[in-house]
Amino acid sequence: MRSSEQNQGFRGINPVTGEALGSEFFDATLAEIDSAMADAGEAAETLRGLDGRRIEELLEAIASGLERRREAIVGCCQLETGYPSGRVAGEFQRMVAGMRRFGAVARRGDWLGVRIDHGDALRQPVPKPDLRRMNVPIGPVVVFGASNFPLALSVAGSDVASALAAGCPVVVKGHPSHPGTSQLLAESISEAVSGASFPSGTFAMLQGASTSVGQELVEHPEVRAVAFTGSLAGGRAIFDMAARREVPVPVYAEMGSSNPQFVFPELLEKDAAGFAKRLFAAATMGNGQFCTNPGLVFLPAGASTFFQHYQTQIAGDVGAPMLNARIRDAFEQGVDRWSRVPGLEILVGFRPAAGIAIGAMAVCARISLQDFIAAGATLQEEVFGPATLFIECAAADEFLHAARSFGGQLGASLHGTEGDLGGRLARELLACLGGLAGRVLANAFPTGLEDCDALQHGGPYPATTDPHWTSVGTAAIERFGRPLAFQDVPDRLLPAALKAGNPLGIRRLVDGEFVEP
Amino acid sequence: MRSSEQNQGFRGINPVTGEALGSEFFDATLAEIDSAMADAGEAAETLRGLDGRRIEELLEAIASGLERRREAIVGCCQLETGYPSGRVAGEFQRMVAGMRRFGAVARRGDWLGVRIDHGDALRQPVPKPDLRRMNVPIGPVVVFGASNFPLALSVAGSDVASALAAGCPVVVKGHPSHPGTSQLLAESISEAVSGASFPSGTFAMLQGASTSVGQELVEHPEVRAVAFTGSLAGGRAIFDMAARREVPVPVYAEMGSSNPQFVFPELLEKDAAGFAKRLFAAATMGNGQFCTNPGLVFLPAGASTFFQHYQTQIAGDVGAPMLNARIRDAFEQGVDRWSRVPGLEILVGFRPAAGIAIGAMAVCARISLQDFIAAGATLQEEVFGPATLFIECAAADEFLHAARSFGGQLGASLHGTEGDLGGRLARELLACLGGLAGRVLANAFPTGLEDCDALQHGGPYPATTDPHWTSVGTAAIERFGRPLAFQDVPDRLLPAALKAGNPLGIRRLVDGEFVEP
Repeated sequence: MRSSEQNQGFRGINPVTGEALGSEFFDATLAEIDSAMADAGEAAETLRGLDGRRIEELLEAIASGLERRREAIVGCCQLETGYPSGRVAGEFQRMVAGMRRFGAVARRGDWLGVRIDHGDALRQPVPKPDLRRMNVPIGPVVVFGASNFPLALSVAGSDVASALAAGCPVVVKGHPSHPGTSQLLAESISEAVSGASFPSGTFAMLQGASTSVGQELVEHPEVRAVAFTGSLAGGRAIFDMAARREVPVPVYAEMGSSNPQFVFPELLEKDAAGFAKRLFAAATMGNGQFCTNPGLVFLPAGASTFFQHYQTQIAGDVGAPMLNARIRDAFEQGVDRWSRVPGLEILVGFRPAAGIAIGAMAVCARISLQDFIAAGATLQEEVFGPATLFIECAAADEFLHAARSFGGQLGASLHGTEGDLGGRLARELLACLGGLAGRVLANAFPTGLEDCDALQHGGPYPATTDPHWTSVGTAAIERFGRPLAFQDVPDRLLPAALKAGNPLGIRRLVDGEFVEP
Repeated sequence: MRSSEQNQGFRGINPVTGEALGSEFFDATLAEIDSAMADAGEAAETLRGLDGRRIEELLEAIASGLERRREAIVGCCQLETGYPSGRVAGEFQRMVAGMRRFGAVARRGDWLGVRIDHGDALRQPVPKPDLRRMNVPIGPVVVFGASNFPLALSVAGSDVASALAAGCPVVVKGHPSHPGTSQLLAESISEAVSGASFPSGTFAMLQGASTSVGQELVEHPEVRAVAFTGSLAGGRAIFDMAARREVPVPVYAEMGSSNPQFVFPELLEKDAAGFAKRLFAAATMGNGQFCTNPGLVFLPAGASTFFQHYQTQIAGDVGAPMLNARIRDAFEQGVDRWSRVPGLEILVGFRPAAGIAIGAMAVCARISLQDFIAAGATLQEEVFGPATLFIECAAADEFLHAARSFGGQLGASLHGTEGDLGGRLARELLACLGGLAGRVLANAFPTGLEDCDALQHGGPYPATTDPHWTSVGTAAIERFGRPLAFQDVPDRLLPAALKAGNPLGIRRLVDGEFVEP
């Protein structure tokens, strides 16, 4: 983990004080990358033969180990991110619960998608073979930790938990914004791997502040899939690298989006104050550093009462830290890009946050739909941070026109009274948004993912590189399995999941009928 | 369909006589491509709102329409492919049955993967949202028809049926080897589309003998996914094009493989004659022009009795037509490539088939495992046609060493007596082959796909471009759906599949439990 060869060194930075934190970390060397991947390749052979109950033991051991180190992890994470203690505590909880949830998914076994079609030796004109199909682990997975969820989407986060749950070894590239947190998490996982008697190559974490560590991992011959959460530029670069490999590998990159919100007129008439308050809370949650941040808000023109209320909200803003200087600078540049769009009016511009070295306060702006459309892709691009752009439409009818201009999105919402949402426009708009987003919401903001079976956190490009997958929710495990069929293989040679006696007690599709254990 | 602008013209060729057939066909023009894709984009909006029963009506109408034109289609197909009448009749049956099977899959609705997690307004510290998730059609799909299955994997084949079943409009690029068959199939489908009152953009077929038609289709902005069956070079070129798009789209390319067979010693001792006969039948089925053709056969050294029997089989060979001159030439070149590998002995070389203009007879060769390994990738590359390479291993133990040298495969088989397959070697070999193939078989050849729920016709690269998918079997529909979640959306705005009352009567995962209708 800690590079022994003293490659490029870097330190975590406390965004509140701007000070470099104590420990120095080093980019992994080529030899370390090679060794981690070789160990992962070897571990893959062992993991492929394990059943879900054994995998659950590992994930349970990891969860318990993390809980034992809770204080150290939470403390380090707060220093490295500047997140308030409540946020870090909540995210810690989500991380540990996620690890256990994927353990349960591994044991439940329905993700294996077992299908059995019995043979028939007497069928004419040719005998019918016996076919049995299940998902098997795809092999070693490289995970890029996200900057903004140092616990729930990083070294012990959803990508790692779902890959392990599928029986895949994982090599994580830790995010350089929280190297100390990554180190503590990785030590804890490795201890659990060893304690549960899994091969040591089951998990490794490599530090890397330069892009070359990531590139070498993506190009390594042992890799079978890559998971990433971050920017469009970063995700696309990884996707391109993986597609150019001699043996291409799937990339599951979640690259954020602007998450358009459509606010219907009656709601603004009846509850302008309430909506302003809820929107402001969602837009500044985590200081806007969420891929599900509601960045674009479409509303009917003439909503002056609402704007007054929103100004009141923003006047009470005290700002907050941003994750690192690069993100803070990109945020400032994004707002600057907005300000140069013809017809766009900055209502509250970029301001540093008082007493915070690397921080920012909320920004908002407005523009007419016509000017928004004229600006093309410029305004559809996500501005990562607490920025909200209001797009004024002559009438709600224009929402449909606006929605049709969008590329893929993680989330998109309708906000309205029962009357607003009862009409044809709401129905058509929902259908249109369903055609471009991974999740559509009514009277709710996309922020705050509910981690469950029915969550979809993905969507068409550029929200992700492949719309088939989700990176959060139990279905995230599906990314790390591939189907394998067994034809006429004797029962004693079949994996437990496919044997006649169903020793694992899992649900199976048998001769076209679902059979419970 | 028929290009009105008299672009590049071409004709089908009867491989038996070598004569060009009557009708001339023309490459689709840019304007025709554009129009077909625009219509598909429009149709996608309508299809997205239809339920599985309506889709089944369409597929049933297509199946019935094809049956009504059976004589014309079968006749044209025989002329264009040179396949014997029994083969064409069987493939026609498979095509029609596949269309109906995917209709049933659409109605059954379990491919929608509905998951519902009910909300809880009273949950602390935050209310739990209501989340409902299902697969929705991915959008317009481009399908490249395969040369070797002009019915079952082409204009009305598995890719088309599964995409339509998912609710996706389809634009097919017909294979230039069977343009007349493509034309008849397309006319029949379009008539059914119209008869079932589906939008005309639901289906289109474009002819194209040059690669530019395919390229323009893959690069068209309306495309959401591409399905292909053919060569590694062709599939990889399409994959690369799709990955370089501004908005990349998934490519499901099935590119064939060498499908290694491992023959255990006791079987060869006890049934050399029977095995030789079965192998020869599988290796020459469709004159070897199957992606599942058993091209590489590993066996213990000293199997002279077996080789005598195989020579007897091959002596009775009369040869058969090949699909077109390009494929026949590539086959001859492949055999020539083999002949230049050090240590490789050609037992029966390339021979044209008597009385067949474009034809070939079966080829076989042998080599030691050592020389096979030394030759590297050269001998792992598929030689498309009736060629079988025997690799002699000093002992069966070496099978494992051989298997570890392979890249991704569609299929891989073990052949042995109960004693052969009862030992540790068989178990380890099966595990190893399961790590690299989409389907593993015991005492069966990969040729002859059983089209059912449990089939997997896919595998790691280079067998396909993405190991998650199958191109045959009911799971093929999964390629054409993507998950969409609805959060807190009122019941009256939800699609039927997600409504509280379950009006479609489909299986759903509700709050973690599978609920039957």
